[in-house]
Amino acid sequence: MKDIAFVLYPGCTPLDLVGPLQVLNALSRLVPDHRTVVVGESLDPVYTDLPLLLAASHTYEQITDPYAVVLPGGLQPTLEGLADERLLARIRGLAEGAEVIGSVCTGSLLLAAAGLLAGRRATTHWMFRDLLAKYGATPVAQRWVEDGPVITAAGVAAGIDMALHLVQRLAGKEIAAEVQLLIEYDPQPPLGPIDWSTVDLAARKPVSDAILAQSLAEHPELLSRLSG
Amino acid sequence: MKDIAFVLYPGCTPLDLVGPLQVLNALSRLVPDHRTVVVGESLDPVYTDLPLLLAASHTYEQITDPYAVVLPGGLQPTLEGLADERLLARIRGLAEGAEVIGSVCTGSLLLAAAGLLAGRRATTHWMFRDLLAKYGATPVAQRWVEDGPVITAAGVAAGIDMALHLVQRLAGKEIAAEVQLLIEYDPQPPLGPIDWSTVDLAARKPVSDAILAQSLAEHPELLSRLSG
Repeated sequence: MKDIAFVLYPGCTPLDLVGPLQVLNALSRLVPDHRTVVVGESLDPVYTDLPLLLAASHTYEQITDPYAVVLPGGLQPTLEGLADERLLARIRGLAEGAEVIGSVCTGSLLLAAAGLLAGRRATTHWMFRDLLAKYGATPVAQRWVEDGPVITAAGVAAGIDMALHLVQRLAGKEIAAEVQLLIEYDPQPPLGPIDWSTVDLAARKPVSDAILAQSLAEHPELLSRLSG
Repeated sequence: MKDIAFVLYPGCTPLDLVGPLQVLNALSRLVPDHRTVVVGESLDPVYTDLPLLLAASHTYEQITDPYAVVLPGGLQPTLEGLADERLLARIRGLAEGAEVIGSVCTGSLLLAAAGLLAGRRATTHWMFRDLLAKYGATPVAQRWVEDGPVITAAGVAAGIDMALHLVQRLAGKEIAAEVQLLIEYDPQPPLGPIDWSTVDLAARKPVSDAILAQSLAEHPELLSRLSG
């Protein structure tokens, strides 16, 4: 059985987790020997950045050797996780021996903090992309980035695209097309694609800096290493 | 305060709910006087079609006069809901007086069963689109369909597009673009858009018929009315 394990931690962004989980769960129904699980410290519901609580299907003790691990991201609680040695140890434990180590949005910063992105090309939410370099990774502005066993997706909704790519890699084009059809992923953003030429990254840096500073207020050394 | 209330019921498809909730929750942070809530019979976690439980933020008793209501869909549990008078009464209660009555995927069939789509144009997941006509609605093959206060989205992932359209309607183009940027909804399906010319709807009808028959096995009269 190939376990595809999503990590649930308090405060994460539900769409980061649910988008790719819905995709990979469809894979698990179409292709035998694949199973999706959601792993947490306990099976109790945890808060998120939505008015919605999520509860895992398994504890870390129950999933010890996953085939793939996927980390969702989030805002302040995820950035607080950069200093959370317990969470980082859980991530290292799941990733050790996994053939696929994936993330969505700022989940890649957790992979980086766990020491899993050093020397690798990776991406994350556009607001925090530069932070990857502080951990020795090379930030790349792509929808998703593959480097060895690691696959990282851009912000929030990018997890769906990355997961469909993973389905294609694991099970072929026909299954990937079927999954896309089943979840009717035929995107029609009312305003069209994002026009990146109108996005002033520099003007927005104070906002991401403030979120980081607030998140790591109790960890001045780490904050100083990641800032500037 | 304008409450945008998502309905949580056992067995629903998480992406139907989380996609538009993530979009409309971003609206609520950018525009004062909007609040998103998730409403259920209780605050206990309910199972879904993923290895993930979801728990509501409010009970029906706490949210009595929402500005908008959004119904997620699902497979068998949602189709079982077509005969669930308690759930249908909850939906009618929330929809009464709401200025926006929305659904994602087969959630529109619940709206139809609650008597809210008679004489209206609507859509749903492509597998079950014809069922809308049995309730006196006109099925439309569009990403989302607006008719009076009702807005229905196509299958699963279509809820994100519909929600961004709603943000634009409620708060304008600039806010909608900002929400789209924050959740980095810049879709790049690895295989491109769905090629509907290759989808044989007739060949797939036995599958949707079987799911419907299984769901309504205990309600032969309703099943017979909805079949054939």
